[in-house]
Parts: sequence; structure tokens; C-alpha cells
Amino acid sequence: MRCEVVAVGSELLLGDVIDTNSAWLGQRLATAGIESYFRTIVGDNVERIVTALRSALERCDAVILCGGLGPTPDDVSRDAIAEVMGVPLRRDEELVERLRARFAERGREMAASNERQADVPVGATAIRQHQGTAPGLICPVGDKVVYAVPGVPHELEEMAERAVIPDLQRRAGPPSTIVSRALRTWGLAESALAERLAPRVEALDVAGNPTLAFLAGGVRGITVRVTARASTRAEAEKLLDAEEAALRRLLGPLVFGVDDQTMEDRVGALLEECGLSLGLAESMTGGLVASRVVEVEGSSRWFRGGVVSYDSQVKFGLLDVPEGPVVSEEAAAAMAQGACRVLEADVGLSVTGVAGPATQDGMPVGTAFFGLCLDGRTEVVHRQLPGDRSHIRQLAVISMLDLLRRRLLDRGSSG
Amino acid sequence: MRCEVVAVGSELLLGDVIDTNSAWLGQRLATAGIESYFRTIVGDNVERIVTALRSALERCDAVILCGGLGPTPDDVSRDAIAEVMGVPLRRDEELVERLRARFAERGREMAASNERQADVPVGATAIRQHQGTAPGLICPVGDKVVYAVPGVPHELEEMAERAVIPDLQRRAGPPSTIVSRALRTWGLAESALAERLAPRVEALDVAGNPTLAFLAGGVRGITVRVTARASTRAEAEKLLDAEEAALRRLLGPLVFGVDDQTMEDRVGALLEECGLSLGLAESMTGGLVASRVVEVEGSSRWFRGGVVSYDSQVKFGLLDVPEGPVVSEEAAAAMAQGACRVLEADVGLSVTGVAGPATQDGMPVGTAFFGLCLDGRTEVVHRQLPGDRSHIRQLAVISMLDLLRRRLLDRGSSG
Repeated sequence: MRCEVVAVGSELLLGDVIDTNSAWLGQRLATAGIESYFRTIVGDNVERIVTALRSALERCDAVILCGGLGPTPDDVSRDAIAEVMGVPLRRDEELVERLRARFAERGREMAASNERQADVPVGATAIRQHQGTAPGLICPVGDKVVYAVPGVPHELEEMAERAVIPDLQRRAGPPSTIVSRALRTWGLAESALAERLAPRVEALDVAGNPTLAFLAGGVRGITVRVTARASTRAEAEKLLDAEEAALRRLLGPLVFGVDDQTMEDRVGALLEECGLSLGLAESMTGGLVASRVVEVEGSSRWFRGGVVSYDSQVKFGLLDVPEGPVVSEEAAAAMAQGACRVLEADVGLSVTGVAGPATQDGMPVGTAFFGLCLDGRTEVVHRQLPGDRSHIRQLAVISMLDLLRRRLLDRGSSG
Repeated sequence: MRCEVVAVGSELLLGDVIDTNSAWLGQRLATAGIESYFRTIVGDNVERIVTALRSALERCDAVILCGGLGPTPDDVSRDAIAEVMGVPLRRDEELVERLRARFAERGREMAASNERQADVPVGATAIRQHQGTAPGLICPVGDKVVYAVPGVPHELEEMAERAVIPDLQRRAGPPSTIVSRALRTWGLAESALAERLAPRVEALDVAGNPTLAFLAGGVRGITVRVTARASTRAEAEKLLDAEEAALRRLLGPLVFGVDDQTMEDRVGALLEECGLSLGLAESMTGGLVASRVVEVEGSSRWFRGGVVSYDSQVKFGLLDVPEGPVVSEEAAAAMAQGACRVLEADVGLSVTGVAGPATQDGMPVGTAFFGLCLDGRTEVVHRQLPGDRSHIRQLAVISMLDLLRRRLLDRGSSG
């Protein structure tokens, strides 16, 4: 089974928007065991979309067309598909009603132009929208198929997972299953990690299944991806289990999560195991840690809240930080203790530092002090973080969460 | 003059790397006045690169092939171009010496495999490398041309600026410049916005220059992009100025920013104009508003900080919210007032609501109350937001910042 992605949008061609959808689909197709050899990006133009679709259909069995399903006149994906199928468009009145209902739910009236979104090429099947307003399409072209999905990333991802990938896999027939597992690490550079894992890399180079790949994710850490091929999912999972165990023996606490598990997911799970609540005091990260923590499902069970003490006066007044330089070990310690007290939390985690662009209190850009108040003890860790303002902030977030993770792990194993 | 980009790399197809090169080249071609209607991404495979090159050359005058010029066996762009030109590769001994010299400069010995990088299709011209080790190529194919450039972004950009774009412009003849401007809006759906702008869309459809396009950005609002073509940049800017004025007459305060300007940039500028400081109290957004606000340059001049009152007890204790349901108008009002008081801020902005997945206090998922305490008056706005947990949060962030922006605008025009 071969499937190509055709992404529609003049904004993609012009480089105003970076095409992240195709990368997401590329990964998703690969893990589903579906081959993809070409990808095309084309502007909002019927004739050119038709050209791109025809070229793609000559080379492969299925095409996923992303974008161009909106209500405005430059949304012409529906017209292009109808032309490739050699059929007219028909307005689906049931879809019109659904669209109208979605608008009504939000207390808005639907513009007449939105009715275009209910146009379906004759012979095609609509994919109902769960999010947004643009329905997707499954369009047979001879014994091949074109899927149309919206260009808005979260709508595309939801619809691809729910309708497109399963349909592709049904068509692909009996499986040789490819299953991947990602071990997410924090604390070593890619080259050091590769050295640590050299015994496994060599062993797997000989055996050929599973395979290992390193994926540098910047502020999300480095991922070691294990991919196994087998005739059933269960067999593939068995290969992955064995390899994961071997890798974990070499990596120890460097592994913080598996697959989509984030650092904050892991921290949340550990806090819940320990029965501890968390309070934050953030300066340089400006609420970024809190915003990540609340993304964890069930965080309300252990997250009390945070204080974003951006201005020094807020540190002195609300958190009882002693007057003096606020980018300092003393300030980080007082902030962590202040977070425990003000937010009535068991654990206080704090950060103060210099995100840049200018130095502060004589400290260079990238300086960070993390404070941790746990079991009545307060500890401060100093780090020098590289990069620009935004990168420094992101590094601070994952570094301080990693500090808390390691201390909770130590506590678990000693207690 | 039409030019297509063909990006080579299995890592791009698999989605392990996001193709930012093509976006950069897309922008660069547009500003150079060179049209680009298709883009192709293809893996490291001679046959498929040949297919992609032949298809592209059928449709246009020039192709920029990015990547696949390295020293390893999977770098096959040189072979593919030679096949399309119908010529053999010849090793350029002068280039071999240059490569060797570059390695020597870095105190390293050159591996034999690197000599492959000096292979040039007969009839092609090498573009000397200033950075990295991979020379580029200018390869005539009949009266058309294929440029090969390295895939490493900074090497590609340097070589494109120095050799490729100037060569393309020479071939294109007398210049025309294309300049774009983006008006960013919040508050109307795409279809309603298109209806509001219908007079301009019709007028421009007739005139053909400038052109209008709508870009749905989800939680970043909808962008109206104006693109003008003229023989000089100054003339193009003049066309854009006139069109921007016409659009603003129709859109009024719906426009919150231009080009890269974000909602928080605009809010920051208005606060600074008014000489007001801001304090936040966030519940459902969990620090997301604060983390966006601190990204604004110079935010320390007007941002005091925030309280992330995720747990109800933090609302009652720290912010003096009256005991009772915390997803309510009363709670939002008390939180905004609490933010002013606790953070000693002139303006208090708050949000409480239900991000999901479960309902809270009998209120449905998506409920949001925004509180605003400004000039001694407290106002609460209630909204019902669609989507999943993360989408609801993002919508809450921009909606509450938009509320503050509009009130500051009103204040400015009335005061």
C-alpha cells in the first residue's frame, strides 16, 4: 500500500506557513506500515490541484489531500477532486443541517457561503466533522482513493486518526505490522547517548529487527525510537518489550517517558504516587511551567497553583523573598518556600533567572536557579542555559521538572 | 519565470524533520518575483528523484533541488541530475583539493567517501561552498535549469542568496517585486469576514493587483493577506498602504495586528501607551496567558505577574474569592480584583471556566468567565468555547486578551 500526501495552500508555497501537517502524516503513515515516496505542495488553484492529484494517483494507491475545504472562494479542493473523479458536486442537505447546528451551538448564525462545505462529489462519502466545520471526504477514483481532510492541524489529526488511517489499513489487507516505541530521555547529548547505547546499536545492526533511531527533539529531549516488524501486533510488542528492557538497563533514570508521555506527565504520576501536592513560583518562565502542568490529565488532584512573580515587588511582597538581587540562590529558595506557604502545597518548585535579551543583577543571559522545597528541606540548583529567550525558557521548564522527577524517584527508592 | 522546489530526504517524508527549507525558499522566490506553483518532497532514491525532477521540469523553467549532496551512499542527488541531463558524472580534481583544504583547516583528515562530493555532471557548473563541505551545482537541461543546493539550512540559505536567486533573476529578465502584508483579525468567522470584505474582494478580482487571501489560523485568528506586484518595492508598498486603509475601514477594531504582531504584542503596546500595569489571575488557562505575555519584548515594563489559582482553595485563600461555585461571574470578578490587589497592578484580568474533560459546578465544558478590573470598574464576560481541552484553553487566552484590547481602545478613544 502506497499513499502520497498532497498539501494545498498558497500560504505553504509562499512559505508563510510551514507545512507541519505533512510531517505529522508522514510519521503516522510510517508507523501504520504504509509506504509514502512523494509529497506535493500546491497552491489554491483547481487546475494545479488536479495536476498534482493525477500525478500522485499514477504513482500510488491512495492520496491524502490536506486543506482547501473551507468556505471561501479560494477553497477549491472539492472542485478539483470532482474533476479528477469525473463527476459533479452535489450539496448534501444533511451536512448543511449539521453545519448549521454547529454554528447554532456556538450561538452564531451560519453564513450562506458555509453551505459550500457541504458539497460532496457524487460517489464520495463525507467524513463527519467532530471539530471545526469542514467535513472530510473519502473519494473513490477507479480502484484507488483520495481522502480530503481539513488543513487546520488539530482537525486534520483528529480526522486522520479516526477515519483515514483505519480506512487505509483496511484497504492495505493482511498486515505485516510495524510497531514503534519511543523512549524519551533527558540529561545527555545525542552523541553521549549514542555512545552509551553502542552495545545495543551494534547488536541490532546485525539482527536487523528491531531497529533503533535517535531523534533529537531540542527542548523535548532526545528520543530513542525502537521499531519492530512482525506478522502480528502482539509479536512486534514482544520484541519491543525485550528491547526496551535492554535499553533501560543502559539508560536508567535518563528515560523519563514512553511515546507521548511528557516530563510533566511523569512528574504528575510520581506526585500522585507519593500523595503530594505541588505549588509553583515562576519568574523567568512566566507561567510556562504551570501551563504545561495543567495539560496533564487529572492535574487538579495534585496541582495547587502557581505564582508568576515577574516583577521583583511581587517576589518581595507576596513570596517574602528577602530584598536584594532576585536572580540568586537565596531568591530561588525563598520562592520555593513561598510557593509552599502561599499556595498551601506540600512541594514548592521555583525558578528565577535571566531569559534575556539583557543581563540582570549582573548575571549573564541563560542563568537559572531552580528551588525545590520538599519534605521540609530546601535545595537550589544552578544552571547555565544556552539559546535565545524562548529556548532558555523552554529549557528551564523541562530542567526544573526533571529535577523534581529525580528527587521524587530518589525519595521513592529510599523510603 | 517559474521555479519549483524539490526537497530530497527520507527524513522529510517520514516526518522526522520538518521541511523548513522549502518555506524559506518559497518566501525568497516570492519576494524575488519568481512564481512557484508546486513543491515536491521525495526520499533518497535516484529513480524517484529523477521522476520528481522530470515532472517539475515539464511544468516550469527552473528547479531548485535541496539536499542529497552529502558524502554518504544515500546522497544521490548528483546521480539523479546526471541521469536527467543524460550525461555522466566527472570528478572535479580542483573541487577535491578544495574539500581536502576545508578539512585540513578544521584539523581533520578527509575520508575517501567525501571525494564523491566533487562529482559534477558533465556540462554543469559547480557553486563553490563557503560553508559546509557540499558544493552546489548549476545544471542546464535544454533551455531550462536545475540548481542543486545542500539541505543544511544555513548552507542552503547562503548559497541560494549568493548564487541561485541572482542566476534566476538574470534568466527572468526585467524585475517585478511581490510584497505581502498580513492583517490579523479576531472576532469573526472566516465566512463572515469574507462577506464583510466582499466589496474589496470583488473590486480586486477585477483589478487583479493587489490580491486578497484569507488564512484561517485557528486560535491565532484569521489573517487577511494582501499581495501586491510592482516594478519596485516602494510602488508595491504604496499599493499595500492603500489597500490596508480600505480594509481597515471595513474591519475596524477586528484587526488586532499586522504581519507577525500577536494579540499580546498589541495589548502590551496599549498598556504602555496608557501607562497601566497588568496583573493576571488564571484558573482554566493555568498560566498560559502569563507565559504568552512574557514573550512580548519589554513586558517587564508593564507586567506585574500572575496568580495561577488552579485549586479552589487558592482562589478562596489568596484571591479572596467568596466561597461558592468557582466557575461563576462572581468568582471571575473577585479574581480580577484579587489580581489587582495581590499583585499591586492597575489592571486585573482573570479567567475561570471548564476546560474539560468533565463538567464542573454544573457548568458545561467550554464555559469561560473573563473578569476585567479597570479604572475601578469590574466587568465580567461569559463565553462558551468549542473544542477539546487544549483548544478551549487557547481560545480563552486570545479571547480574554482581545477583551482587554478592546476596552483599552475604547478608553483611548473616549479619554
